[in-house]
Amino acid sequence: MTMTTSPPCADTTTVWVNGERHAAHGPHLSALDRGFTLADGVFETMRVYGGCAFRIDEHLARLERALHALEIPTPPELRAWVLTALREVAQLDAGLRLTVTRGASIAGLAPPAPSATLPTVTIVVSPPPRFPPSVYETGLTAHIASGRRNERAMTAGLKTLSYTDNVAALLEARRAGADEALLLDTEGHCAEATASNLFAWTAGALVTPPLTCGVLPGITRAVVLELARSLGVPAIERVLGPEELRAADEAFLTSSLRTLAPLVRLDAHPIGRGTPGALTRELLAAYEARVDQECRA
Amino acid sequence: MTMTTSPPCADTTTVWVNGERHAAHGPHLSALDRGFTLADGVFETMRVYGGCAFRIDEHLARLERALHALEIPTPPELRAWVLTALREVAQLDAGLRLTVTRGASIAGLAPPAPSATLPTVTIVVSPPPRFPPSVYETGLTAHIASGRRNERAMTAGLKTLSYTDNVAALLEARRAGADEALLLDTEGHCAEATASNLFAWTAGALVTPPLTCGVLPGITRAVVLELARSLGVPAIERVLGPEELRAADEAFLTSSLRTLAPLVRLDAHPIGRGTPGALTRELLAAYEARVDQECRA
Repeated sequence: MTMTTSPPCADTTTVWVNGERHAAHGPHLSALDRGFTLADGVFETMRVYGGCAFRIDEHLARLERALHALEIPTPPELRAWVLTALREVAQLDAGLRLTVTRGASIAGLAPPAPSATLPTVTIVVSPPPRFPPSVYETGLTAHIASGRRNERAMTAGLKTLSYTDNVAALLEARRAGADEALLLDTEGHCAEATASNLFAWTAGALVTPPLTCGVLPGITRAVVLELARSLGVPAIERVLGPEELRAADEAFLTSSLRTLAPLVRLDAHPIGRGTPGALTRELLAAYEARVDQECRA
Repeated sequence: MTMTTSPPCADTTTVWVNGERHAAHGPHLSALDRGFTLADGVFETMRVYGGCAFRIDEHLARLERALHALEIPTPPELRAWVLTALREVAQLDAGLRLTVTRGASIAGLAPPAPSATLPTVTIVVSPPPRFPPSVYETGLTAHIASGRRNERAMTAGLKTLSYTDNVAALLEARRAGADEALLLDTEGHCAEATASNLFAWTAGALVTPPLTCGVLPGITRAVVLELARSLGVPAIERVLGPEELRAADEAFLTSSLRTLAPLVRLDAHPIGRGTPGALTRELLAAYEARVDQECRA
């Protein structure tokens, strides 16, 4: 398996709402849904390989932790609905987005009692995003965002629907001619990109910012830490400044859909030789082998 | 007019989507709408008095500034759609929520080109929220949130859909036995409550935190600054620490729906005498008179 071949993919988008299948065009949701009005919900994005959602247990566990933190009851049918959606995409490659909101309620910030509303569960299965081969061959460039990630936010570390800051950071990066935005935390440490975690190969260790820098506990991030250690590469979570990142030997970004994408430039500064590094390629190959092992065995 | 009488109110909720009227129960929206998946949109909440949306021009101007910052084109029919919704509620009192999102698109954080998607405009007209008379008579209590407001966020000062932190802060406040949460900024200064701005009467001045503390530029906040100055009360925007707030003579919270709500306690500490203050009452009366003047003349 490589990231640039074309396995059989879901060719349409399908939407499930609370277990019921709907046409992609909708409408599906109430304008009173608190997910829409207040971003009052959480989500997961999974990469489906031949009908198998990689690390589904980790994704569902993270989702349930976030629901618990927001006092949104976990619908008991949640896993069954995801499995039903997966069964219907059969053996295809796909992206699966799972969103759970507190549900529809009358206006106002105060959440209704759990007994007074029903959470909304949407599952969207789509063809997997096709990233240009250049992402992996030449690597991504990043711009340091003018705004900061808040490591002391009420919902730091939870994958909530509040992604407006990330969208704004990506728009700013595009205006600056970069592919991605890197967000620093309020102390000026590297946190994460707009939808991916950051890794740097520096001073003989693979370093990723700790959760105390306001980063999401990425599923792919955890897999990469595992894989690096299994390869005998020292892999640690510690604070990483932008100067150290600029001077690193290699860097890459991790996410469930794009997996490991080399990061080769930070604003005007090439990282390493300005091309994808050898460790990055080795870890990407190890990641793909792990996917094969867990999903295509 | 007083806040505790019952003027004729909209008795049902009505939803408009891009100018078309729909039943309240829906569904109205696509599960692929970026407002739902990524909080990629902005909103305004207006109080409608006898069919007149108070300070509608200021609300629409703030919305357009936020849309511009997020590179979401302002739909040319926006104002006409709001006016149509207002005409249909006739002479009633109501709350009007106006939401504009970037529209539906395939998965992924990267915004589609403006030509590739159509913004979604929802207008929800509902009966105005009925706050218990005790809100104004005995006042609100607040808990200082454990998380911080990020005054250096990419979207600081914009009324985006990313309200998850506010919901989480309100849940925490309720667990602490308080009515509201007060969020401090990352420097530890008072910022705002979960959906309202803060004012304190302290050291002979009416003080509200400046926009540099990450607060929303509230429409009611601006009206109160105007009214205080017209009454000869020195009214200024400056940094306010929680200690100074605790020691203030009076405090209150401002928002379009709840207007001016006395704040009488901060965790274990009464503010002033622990009851609504004389200046708060005077400003609430002045606010109501201003509403009468602009909307009921």
